[in-house]
Amino acid sequence: VRVEIVAVGSELLLGQSVDTNSTVIAAHLAEAGIDCQFQVRVGDNVERIAMALRAALARADAVVVCGGLGPTQDDVTREAIAAVMGVELREDRDAAALVRAAFARRGRAMAASNLRQALVPVGASIIPQRLGTAPGLVCPVGDRVVYALPGVPRELEEMLERAVLPDLRRRAGSAAVILSRTLRTAGLAESVLAEILEPRFRALEASGPGAVTIAFLASGVEGIKVRLTVKAPNQVEAARALDAEEEEVRRLLGDAVFGVDDETMEAAVGKLLREGGRMLALAESFTGGLMASRVVALAGASEWFAGGVVTYASEAKRRVLEIEVDGVVSGRTAAAMAEAVRSLFGADVGLATTGVAGPDRLEGRLPGTAFVGIALDGEPAEALELSLPGDREQVRGLGTLSAFDALRRRLLTRARRTA
Amino acid sequence: VRVEIVAVGSELLLGQSVDTNSTVIAAHLAEAGIDCQFQVRVGDNVERIAMALRAALARADAVVVCGGLGPTQDDVTREAIAAVMGVELREDRDAAALVRAAFARRGRAMAASNLRQALVPVGASIIPQRLGTAPGLVCPVGDRVVYALPGVPRELEEMLERAVLPDLRRRAGSAAVILSRTLRTAGLAESVLAEILEPRFRALEASGPGAVTIAFLASGVEGIKVRLTVKAPNQVEAARALDAEEEEVRRLLGDAVFGVDDETMEAAVGKLLREGGRMLALAESFTGGLMASRVVALAGASEWFAGGVVTYASEAKRRVLEIEVDGVVSGRTAAAMAEAVRSLFGADVGLATTGVAGPDRLEGRLPGTAFVGIALDGEPAEALELSLPGDREQVRGLGTLSAFDALRRRLLTRARRTA
Repeated sequence: VRVEIVAVGSELLLGQSVDTNSTVIAAHLAEAGIDCQFQVRVGDNVERIAMALRAALARADAVVVCGGLGPTQDDVTREAIAAVMGVELREDRDAAALVRAAFARRGRAMAASNLRQALVPVGASIIPQRLGTAPGLVCPVGDRVVYALPGVPRELEEMLERAVLPDLRRRAGSAAVILSRTLRTAGLAESVLAEILEPRFRALEASGPGAVTIAFLASGVEGIKVRLTVKAPNQVEAARALDAEEEEVRRLLGDAVFGVDDETMEAAVGKLLREGGRMLALAESFTGGLMASRVVALAGASEWFAGGVVTYASEAKRRVLEIEVDGVVSGRTAAAMAEAVRSLFGADVGLATTGVAGPDRLEGRLPGTAFVGIALDGEPAEALELSLPGDREQVRGLGTLSAFDALRRRLLTRARRTA
Repeated sequence: VRVEIVAVGSELLLGQSVDTNSTVIAAHLAEAGIDCQFQVRVGDNVERIAMALRAALARADAVVVCGGLGPTQDDVTREAIAAVMGVELREDRDAAALVRAAFARRGRAMAASNLRQALVPVGASIIPQRLGTAPGLVCPVGDRVVYALPGVPRELEEMLERAVLPDLRRRAGSAAVILSRTLRTAGLAESVLAEILEPRFRALEASGPGAVTIAFLASGVEGIKVRLTVKAPNQVEAARALDAEEEEVRRLLGDAVFGVDDETMEAAVGKLLREGGRMLALAESFTGGLMASRVVALAGASEWFAGGVVTYASEAKRRVLEIEVDGVVSGRTAAAMAEAVRSLFGADVGLATTGVAGPDRLEGRLPGTAFVGIALDGEPAEALELSLPGDREQVRGLGTLSAFDALRRRLLTRARRTA
């Protein structure tokens, strides 16, 4: 089957909100192996919604329309579908009962206008709501079908998974499965990654259709993602193909791969610290709390994170860390900060950043000049210099990721030496 | 004129990336008072892009197409436009020179494939690039026009503002101006805001067309935005109407308004601190560096920000801040942290957070239970208790905003007392 998506809402056309609903629907369709060639956005207007639906039905077997099912006068998706079907809207007894029950469940009085949500085009059936009030609709149009879903993201996704995707799979017969896996890398430029993985590109191309494909996604400060995608008859075969390719790619990229899918750099660092039974303390200058903030965002961080200081002013470095500061932008300062914060918190590892976030120069050094200090176990601290591109926000973001990555590589080396 | 937007990219149809380009274009069109009724997304496929362009040109006077102008084989927007125009692609000498110059500027060697970016449909003109390499295109189709812009967001926006919008305004003759202004509020629920502003809604409704409209935008942890919008013959009249309405709204909402448009809560706090000549120090427990990180994101923060500590483990509170801790989740601890960090950094103001981020209870208290400590000038610290809804991320975000807001209100009161 071929599906199109129509997102309804004047706020989309005015640029007041981003259409993430279509992205969610598209991702689910892709995962189910269902083709989608067009997506359309249209305002809260009966004629134009109907126009968009007719155009989509002329090209595709099914249309998923989202938004415009609420209780107010500008929710007109129902009317547009009825016009396309050439039928009337009628209050559906089951739908009305469900709308009433949704209000009763929350102990709220119901304004009569809410019963607009129980209007159903004659011949359509409803998808009962489980989270909100507006039911979804399954509307046959000849041998094609329009699924209407509410615009509230979690309601939409719940109905999509429960009712729409199973129905589409049935219509498609045996749909293939498209599965992706993302290997997250740091420290290598896209062109370098491409060069290293060149043998894999050639091997996969030679192995013909059904092979895994590799794509690069630059993800700003979060590094470059290497996405493996495969289309297979079922989940098991798809996962097996991805496992095999992941092994090949990891063999070529080594430590540059720090995580899979949603795994962040700080989570990778935390895992290594926990395995080694080490506690971390942070001293941040230009990253200014960004590192600590990303660590504390992880549930369970208290197992390996003691705390940190943000010594933004150089006076604070002297006063709080009690270190000599000749210059803020120096490797010596970074190393001294790492040692001082480790002992201040009684931790095992001290990690420090100092540098120039911009927009102005500092101590004559260009924005993006930065140093990372690492004090590991009882040893004296080391420092490394970074040259970070971009504006203030990027420099701080890249500095955060680079500092975590430096510690990660140091901990990996240490673990191998011990093993 | 009526404009449609076509966004090109298979990653959009696969749900791998969100189409923010269309949102940016739509917002600019709306601000220029230009109508946009449909937006379409299509994959990297010549026939389907051409199909989308033809459908859009049948309904609208102009089409803005974005994406698919890069150097690789899957960038085929140029080919699709040429097909719609019924002309050939030819290498444009000026465009080729500009592509070469873009590489020379960055001191990089140019692969021959990059000259694909200099291919131009016969009869079209180019929009020179200023930031990247791919030029944009202005392509007449009968009495209509297709503007092609690169998919890189900042390149797109730069060309849109420099070349596309002025050209559209010329075509439109005297377009009206739609202008919006956002008043950012904290501390009041949407229903309370609606009740307070009820007299303004009634007055504006009574004053008929051309009046300012008011809308609420819930913005998660960033509070609720009150958006004022007006359509007027020109910029000056639009701004005057917004000024007048802003004054009315501010009179009703008072200190709940903390900023306008992009002004953040921490920027509002920074402004008050700078005006009072005070330096701030932060002690963060469950917010874990989020507060410091938002402060340091502001250029010039060093004028009013001394630094901070992240005392995540309770041992760190004792060790680094040298305070007695009976319980982490208490007003006494928050107040003690605020005083201790003020004196640790030699600052004028100490601001502290401690509480339960979740997902688990702490000291028997529910996630979302939190305390803010404020030590202002030489006075003993005060504490206030918060009850924050949501998951770990929300609790930390809301805690950050609420703590800044508490300090902001305290500083406002102080400034009035002194004045």
